[in-house]
Amino acid sequence: MAATYELLQETGLGGLTVDAVSERSGVAKTTIYRHWPTRSALLIDACSKLGTRREVPDTGNLAGDLSVLAADLAHRLRTARWASVLPSIVDAAERDAELARMHARLHAELISAFRAVVERAHKRGELPRGRLPTDVVAAVLGPLFYRRWFSREPLDDRFVKAVVDSAVKG
Amino acid sequence: MAATYELLQETGLGGLTVDAVSERSGVAKTTIYRHWPTRSALLIDACSKLGTRREVPDTGNLAGDLSVLAADLAHRLRTARWASVLPSIVDAAERDAELARMHARLHAELISAFRAVVERAHKRGELPRGRLPTDVVAAVLGPLFYRRWFSREPLDDRFVKAVVDSAVKG
Repeated sequence: MAATYELLQETGLGGLTVDAVSERSGVAKTTIYRHWPTRSALLIDACSKLGTRREVPDTGNLAGDLSVLAADLAHRLRTARWASVLPSIVDAAERDAELARMHARLHAELISAFRAVVERAHKRGELPRGRLPTDVVAAVLGPLFYRRWFSREPLDDRFVKAVVDSAVKG
Repeated sequence: MAATYELLQETGLGGLTVDAVSERSGVAKTTIYRHWPTRSALLIDACSKLGTRREVPDTGNLAGDLSVLAADLAHRLRTARWASVLPSIVDAAERDAELARMHARLHAELISAFRAVVERAHKRGELPRGRLPTDVVAAVLGPLFYRRWFSREPLDDRFVKAVVDSAVKG
């Protein structure tokens, strides 16, 4: 599994083969196949352990909760292993239904704390009028993902604060 | 080039080889190499013709201009060929400096009309106080990209309107 992680980072999902995992780890292919009958099974197991789930904060209001989560996510987008692997999963999900289901599970895990604080705020009547919980989640995660993977601009504190302010305002 | 486009859609950048282009097009590899000396040269030429640049609208105000551009982009994210190819370019850009430069050029083209209308509005003093032009671009493109490639929720008219409203408000 450690070799699989390493290769995922180096090559993305596309370049990851059981041959390469065997070579990197020194574990025979037959042994690998005993634990994971297919390449997909190995990939899904590795990706499910990328560890993106977070505790749900409770600062008393939506802006505070989102500030905690967005600052933490921005930090992980800059530094965490899964941030360089996720685009290869998104790419694979475009063409492979099994990997699309895995990506959907990973995504649900990644956003679970965001959803929880936004839905709690929605029940308290804290969301701007006409704004749905999923709109607010997209308004926070969208710009952070955009800067990490598309524009590659800095994910600095000023930007993270501007994103949260804009997401919670009416 | 047509075969290259087809294969880009089917396999993404990772699976695209000169062998596969030769087989699909019926053009000999030696002929392909005469036009494009390397696989990268072929990929860069194909991607540079994905055609994401748009005219700059002039409706008289930022909300109007962004509504036109965001509706058009949402439509293309749902239907255009490049929308299923871009994640493979983003993925490759994580690990390959030449493809990262190509992705940066593609991205600049994709957002050029957005940048133009936001910078014009900035000069007119139309942006909310403390909001930078790049913040506004990220506030529009981020949520649209997020829904297309990450959450895979619908990019419907209501959502596009909510994104633009939120991006232009103070």
